[in-house]
Amino acid sequence: MVDQLWKGRQSGPSASILVRMGQSIDLDIKLFRQDILGSRAHTIMLHSIGVLSQEESQTILAGLRQIAEEIEAGTLPLRAELEDIHTHVENRLIELTGEAGRKLHTARSRNDQIALDTHLYVRDQSVFTCHSLLGLLAVILKRSEEHRATILPGYTHLQIGQPVRLSHHLLAYFWKFLRDFDRFFRAMQTANRLPLGSGALAGVNYPVDREMVQKKLGFSELYENSMDAVSSRDHILEFLFAASVLAVNASRLAEEMILWMSSEFQFLELPDSLTTGSSIMPQKKNPDLAELVRGKSGRFISHLQNLLINLKGLPLTYNRDLQEDRFPLTDTAEQLELLIEALGALLEQAQFRPENMQKSLEAGFATATDLADALVKEHGIPFRDAHHITGRLISYCLKNGKVLQGLETQERAAIHGALTNDAFYFRAISLEASTEKKISRGGTAQGCQEMQTGLARIEFEKRSRISWPGPAPDLL
Amino acid sequence: MVDQLWKGRQSGPSASILVRMGQSIDLDIKLFRQDILGSRAHTIMLHSIGVLSQEESQTILAGLRQIAEEIEAGTLPLRAELEDIHTHVENRLIELTGEAGRKLHTARSRNDQIALDTHLYVRDQSVFTCHSLLGLLAVILKRSEEHRATILPGYTHLQIGQPVRLSHHLLAYFWKFLRDFDRFFRAMQTANRLPLGSGALAGVNYPVDREMVQKKLGFSELYENSMDAVSSRDHILEFLFAASVLAVNASRLAEEMILWMSSEFQFLELPDSLTTGSSIMPQKKNPDLAELVRGKSGRFISHLQNLLINLKGLPLTYNRDLQEDRFPLTDTAEQLELLIEALGALLEQAQFRPENMQKSLEAGFATATDLADALVKEHGIPFRDAHHITGRLISYCLKNGKVLQGLETQERAAIHGALTNDAFYFRAISLEASTEKKISRGGTAQGCQEMQTGLARIEFEKRSRISWPGPAPDLL
Amino acid sequence: MVDQLWKGRQSGPSASILVRMGQSIDLDIKLFRQDILGSRAHTIMLHSIGVLSQEESQTILAGLRQIAEEIEAGTLPLRAELEDIHTHVENRLIELTGEAGRKLHTARSRNDQIALDTHLYVRDQSVFTCHSLLGLLAVILKRSEEHRATILPGYTHLQIGQPVRLSHHLLAYFWKFLRDFDRFFRAMQTANRLPLGSGALAGVNYPVDREMVQKKLGFSELYENSMDAVSSRDHILEFLFAASVLAVNASRLAEEMILWMSSEFQFLELPDSLTTGSSIMPQKKNPDLAELVRGKSGRFISHLQNLLINLKGLPLTYNRDLQEDRFPLTDTAEQLELLIEALGALLEQAQFRPENMQKSLEAGFATATDLADALVKEHGIPFRDAHHITGRLISYCLKNGKVLQGLETQERAAIHGALTNDAFYFRAISLEASTEKKISRGGTAQGCQEMQTGLARIEFEKRSRISWPGPAPDLL
Amino acid sequence: MVDQLWKGRQSGPSASILVRMGQSIDLDIKLFRQDILGSRAHTIMLHSIGVLSQEESQTILAGLRQIAEEIEAGTLPLRAELEDIHTHVENRLIELTGEAGRKLHTARSRNDQIALDTHLYVRDQSVFTCHSLLGLLAVILKRSEEHRATILPGYTHLQIGQPVRLSHHLLAYFWKFLRDFDRFFRAMQTANRLPLGSGALAGVNYPVDREMVQKKLGFSELYENSMDAVSSRDHILEFLFAASVLAVNASRLAEEMILWMSSEFQFLELPDSLTTGSSIMPQKKNPDLAELVRGKSGRFISHLQNLLINLKGLPLTYNRDLQEDRFPLTDTAEQLELLIEALGALLEQAQFRPENMQKSLEAGFATATDLADALVKEHGIPFRDAHHITGRLISYCLKNGKVLQGLETQERAAIHGALTNDAFYFRAISLEASTEKKISRGGTAQGCQEMQTGLARIEFEKRSRISWPGPAPDLL
Repeated sequence: MVDQLWKGRQSGPSASILVRMGQSIDLDIKLFRQDILGSRAHTIMLHSIGVLSQEESQTILAGLRQIAEEIEAGTLPLRAELEDIHTHVENRLIELTGEAGRKLHTARSRNDQIALDTHLYVRDQSVFTCHSLLGLLAVILKRSEEHRATILPGYTHLQIGQPVRLSHHLLAYFWKFLRDFDRFFRAMQTANRLPLGSGALAGVNYPVDREMVQKKLGFSELYENSMDAVSSRDHILEFLFAASVLAVNASRLAEEMILWMSSEFQFLELPDSLTTGSSIMPQKKNPDLAELVRGKSGRFISHLQNLLINLKGLPLTYNRDLQEDRFPLTDTAEQLELLIEALGALLEQAQFRPENMQKSLEAGFATATDLADALVKEHGIPFRDAHHITGRLISYCLKNGKVLQGLETQERAAIHGALTNDAFYFRAISLEASTEKKISRGGTAQGCQEMQTGLARIEFEKRSRISWPGPAPDLL
Repeated sequence: MVDQLWKGRQSGPSASILVRMGQSIDLDIKLFRQDILGSRAHTIMLHSIGVLSQEESQTILAGLRQIAEEIEAGTLPLRAELEDIHTHVENRLIELTGEAGRKLHTARSRNDQIALDTHLYVRDQSVFTCHSLLGLLAVILKRSEEHRATILPGYTHLQIGQPVRLSHHLLAYFWKFLRDFDRFFRAMQTANRLPLGSGALAGVNYPVDREMVQKKLGFSELYENSMDAVSSRDHILEFLFAASVLAVNASRLAEEMILWMSSEFQFLELPDSLTTGSSIMPQKKNPDLAELVRGKSGRFISHLQNLLINLKGLPLTYNRDLQEDRFPLTDTAEQLELLIEALGALLEQAQFRPENMQKSLEAGFATATDLADALVKEHGIPFRDAHHITGRLISYCLKNGKVLQGLETQERAAIHGALTNDAFYFRAISLEASTEKKISRGGTAQGCQEMQTGLARIEFEKRSRISWPGPAPDLL
Repeated sequence: MVDQLWKGRQSGPSASILVRMGQSIDLDIKLFRQDILGSRAHTIMLHSIGVLSQEESQTILAGLRQIAEEIEAGTLPLRAELEDIHTHVENRLIELTGEAGRKLHTARSRNDQIALDTHLYVRDQSVFTCHSLLGLLAVILKRSEEHRATILPGYTHLQIGQPVRLSHHLLAYFWKFLRDFDRFFRAMQTANRLPLGSGALAGVNYPVDREMVQKKLGFSELYENSMDAVSSRDHILEFLFAASVLAVNASRLAEEMILWMSSEFQFLELPDSLTTGSSIMPQKKNPDLAELVRGKSGRFISHLQNLLINLKGLPLTYNRDLQEDRFPLTDTAEQLELLIEALGALLEQAQFRPENMQKSLEAGFATATDLADALVKEHGIPFRDAHHITGRLISYCLKNGKVLQGLETQERAAIHGALTNDAFYFRAISLEASTEKKISRGGTAQGCQEMQTGLARIEFEKRSRISWPGPAPDLL
Repeated sequence: MVDQLWKGRQSGPSASILVRMGQSIDLDIKLFRQDILGSRAHTIMLHSIGVLSQEESQTILAGLRQIAEEIEAGTLPLRAELEDIHTHVENRLIELTGEAGRKLHTARSRNDQIALDTHLYVRDQSVFTCHSLLGLLAVILKRSEEHRATILPGYTHLQIGQPVRLSHHLLAYFWKFLRDFDRFFRAMQTANRLPLGSGALAGVNYPVDREMVQKKLGFSELYENSMDAVSSRDHILEFLFAASVLAVNASRLAEEMILWMSSEFQFLELPDSLTTGSSIMPQKKNPDLAELVRGKSGRFISHLQNLLINLKGLPLTYNRDLQEDRFPLTDTAEQLELLIEALGALLEQAQFRPENMQKSLEAGFATATDLADALVKEHGIPFRDAHHITGRLISYCLKNGKVLQGLETQERAAIHGALTNDAFYFRAISLEASTEKKISRGGTAQGCQEMQTGLARIEFEKRSRISWPGPAPDLL
């Protein structure tokens, strides 16, 4: 028979609905490494303050090691009536070590234990995500360097605006994902604080050495208020927020890839291994992976929403509602891994089609602005008039199914005399030349791209050299 | 080697990330009954229009039956590279029946197939939820009839307002959950429409008998536009919305139970089997189940949010983003079942403590209004003055730690002469008498309670007699 | 000095922060018609049960009429310290009518009054929205009838799938918006229930004639439980949900219009009056209105979320949190009006470009499936082989920049002998013929379109003839 | 007639629906200071690179100053057809300064202008919020120091757990709001980056001195990619997230205040100026302000959701959807101000009732754990047995309506001999002594409180000394 540790006034078994609804082991088994790591640190500390003898400490540490192996191997049976990861570990530890195992519960409550587990988990997952993002950023840097000479339409309102270098477009996402990196870094910092030693809510009756546990687990800070420690889920919220913004940024890139894969755009091809076909439409080459990236954004955002709602109006300190934090947390962590891997694969293997980008640029009159500017600068025509001349030229093209690049001299002459000079005209509407005029810092000109890449590389390197927190080597 | 049915232009295996991110079998295995039922109906229809021979039809039906049993028994291995439930079933069917099985794909696409599966699933789960809600409503009716004589404080702003009968308080939830029932009923109606026969998006090249399939599957309507059929997720949205509102209503009841279980209120006790204790605080009897009900509300609401976000901005018709509909759908269905069972258990087994309710009422001056009214009616004192007299009486009580029921005649006399008549005074502040004055229809007076209960019972009976849609008997 | 009606135990003025945060008059002034209408009905009823004399009743009714005119004219000053619409009206009424006005508060509380106001408002706005939607549906019907012969690509995964008639594509939205209509209809039904007569929470001490008020205000039902009546916001939730789904459906249509307006698609033009240009990019013609439709979806969805979150965990009955219901409610109502008008204008004035749709269809190999089917049917080639033949043909086209419609006989011969018959081949890849094969009910064939339009028209007419609830004529 | 600056290909006036739906001036008028400040910096920079003469620059700066005064004074009429704040300012500037004013648009687009405005606004509002939060933190510190000797129940599951010092409870919120401060600080940092100089999307054709503008406006960084600059809304998302978490933390404190104000708890009184009463229930003293704080949380959370949804799936760069960012942004900023002021007023003026806290503690057997511990420590009874002894004692109390503090020696003797020693017993169940045993760092013991307060004060001081970014003095 199961010995539920919290039995106090209660007698008799729990109702089935309480067991089934109250269990969280299906999800918090995913935090078993964190749970056991925390127990190891607690064991060592309890020994250091004399609560555990040397022998008890060794016995417990060995038992914990064995339990970790059993869970890893899938041999520890999970039982709903044992509720959570803490009880599974503790119960098994008592089986393995008897009285020694029982003492591990000293000066600790499940309330500060789950706080500890989720802090370690958020820290671990944030670090993992940062590493994945570095991989993604490296891909973007590489692809952007390959495509500095590729020119594609820059859009506003999904209307072709101005020609931009593909490197520039890709680097826009570099900076977005870099900010995502920084948000995960900050979530990691928020999680990098020890809650253990808070007991159920008020602190514990033992002179526990929290600084020792903090050091062992590699936390940079500790909670200075026990009630705050067991009631706060800020670290999870920050992780879920970072994931939501990343997912939204990813959905924007995914949307573009889907557009670019369309028959109408054809800016992009993906290898067969990253697309699907159709059983009844043989011509289809579907961008499923990009669609899934886009489609997951609702999932990430809703997980953030879930926890915010959960916390709304909860009085201090621990309430059972908080058990529900694991659903958004663990699913977000798992989906994040897929999301970033998918983005990396898509970007890495994308085959861009510059010739189609050029076709779009021409069809979209992308250098109309440049022509107007040239009329102003080289012919002294007032801006507003130049604007209208260009507008008439476009109207002519639209009516006759032409592009600026394909107009004969006499066709242009009919609009305005200044357009008859071919050298002037073709220079004015050159796509390459247009990008070269965008010389402001952060602009799309070649030189600006080089500077931008250099700055991006510096930011990348800086983040590559971060030394991440983690448990003390002797704890592992 | 796996034969992915959609291989068209593609050659070579899918990338691992596409397989892992693209699979939905982990979730849509939960829709296997719906998938197989739909295939059965489709088989019979294909036979009726001559696409399948009698023998082929029989072979397929037998194969489908076997596959259902295998899935039921857990012996059909689930493989990510087979993506979804349709492919698992079809692949296995071809293993079992060869060419016959291959023909089942005729005049059908995965796009209308998943639409069908989710329609059947929402219909089934809505019906199931309605039945569960009937059980819950019955409990509320029973408990409210037991507690018509129990008087508790009615609160506004969590401040004690007026005495109400516990039956009245409980019946407030009867009506709320009745509206929830009606929302699930409407979600069921929205789902009760056949999408099959829409093909990938444009309809199919066969003279399929959609009315026959509709009838076999028991749908009241069919989609009149194939592009609408494969792109709409309204039925799921309505189910998720119904669940969200139910969850919010449930959270309100749960909040009250948590309050009532507190040491300060003590209006309610729960049996040990529905509560937990604390390993280090032996006096605790925690309302975990009610907290979990409250804490789940974020989960339900966020699932609705997820699908709304997913659908935002999706062009017609099928996009792979839609695969993500199963995550909110199946989790909502499973959590709903727990939620309603938990509510039922809590309400069924709640032990109310009328004596503590009375204490609160007295401490909260719940009949102060009644006293003011009585001063107006029986002593002709203007309302505003009566209001002020009562206010002063309360101030006196607060200063002296007394309740209205405990004031001596002379204490009252010091406030106002009209209060010296004991008979008048005690009648005026009687809790029971106060509730009896609330004679408006829907009010808390005894007679109103009887009428309300009668009306509630009528609504209950009406919904008990609904004849629910379902597949034709010969299809099962 | 302001006479706040709720002053009981309180003395002295409210703190500035309470006044500024507690006021809702900035929003609930928008419900003034509902508030005054409810007061008129209440007045007549109070007279009928003898609480008000004939003269008092007349005086009050005249006063209310005057106040309505003053608010309409903008001459009634709004004052934060008067908090809400009820207090503004009541305060002004007392100014105008003295003691008579004071009696209007009899047997009524602000708790049931605001419930009444929001019920009337949701009912009014739902009816209004249904009417707007009828206008939108009529536009869709008209445009779809104009474009039955126009063929455009049907997409899945934003990849061209099969040719469909534009009528079919447009009608897909007919059915979606029809379901939206039905959701607003149901929100209207949920709101069509009288809460007044519930007092603060427990009912009132007067034999009020709620059935009379119900009838005067045109409600089909009344709340049978006073605690439910003042605590429920289901009617608002249903309205916000209906708006959210509508907004999501609208965002899908908007997304398509934005795509279709792009230089790469060019399926659609809009008149200048519905687009914007760019001061520095003269070629731009931006689909701002469609973007705003898409961009508003987050606003609608978030308003629904707001109220769901607000209600989570609120104990019965009235809590001041509920004041926040007006923010999502009124903004949703106002934005809805713009949204539907925008959709109507966009659809009404859209100029479709069939020639570009055809170009896309050809470039996208939209009849590849049909060719494969024809190879199966007319040449007896197994489906899978036919599929692969078509696949090779497409590969050839892609490599050589051709479309199926442009292949010479000998080019086809190189792939498979069956393709050399020109008559067979061009019939097989005909866009028109392809749509004509989609003969399943709800499919895109001409005949199916006619049937579908007929059915759509029936549904439209049915809803056009609804007789909507409203106040009794003698109340206005 | 209005001269819309973006008129390119368009002729004729905009449709009314485009004007009404497209206008944002109702909201972005709130950003007028930021808009004008940005224009001032741009003017000075344009002069420095020779685009504007000294005289033109002076004229424009004077014009901008005048416009700021006009808006401040409310004399500049707002017109929907002028769409946004930029156009209002530019239009008025041209009225005032003619050709000079026209030149201000050089090397700038509305796309980077609105990005600039929202960056400045988020920065300003974050700084403002941080200052407000410092005020709130100071109140908490003050009240916690006043109440170090006050002991109240610490709750888990809303069940009384262990006695804690009120200082400890209040300080838990100190740390929560301190983290909120840090999130606003980070939002400020994210916003502290110059987007101007990005043009419509690709950079500008002028050698603009972005570093000069950056310095003038006091930005710590500038966007290194123009496409990122005009498409990113990360800074707003971070602000909305910080506000959401703050609102959730606030809702928890508000919930507690509402509970504590209830007749059943009575831990807290608020002055009349911060509460409301009831017109028909004179005894009511309603915690409206706390309810409004709680009720606003949905509003904040939903604003964050709104923008996340808006951004989902948006391709680069500017899309008109982004106009909708101002609705959640400006409302959040305005509501934040109310929220923090309300919290401050509530905490500042709360009158705590230690005597009622003590009553609850006794009634809730808050020191039962301590008694069990004492039995272990001083009588050598095994923990589990001690736990059961205490449990029986509680059962006895519950049955007899007693509290531990009120048991006679013989009553205790009946449970266990160890309980007969009065000195031992009363020391063991002392509330004060219980808190003094929680000696772990961050615990509730007196010494720990002192240390915690000291650390809190250090963190407070550190944040008080932050030097905030802002425009260069010569720009103002």
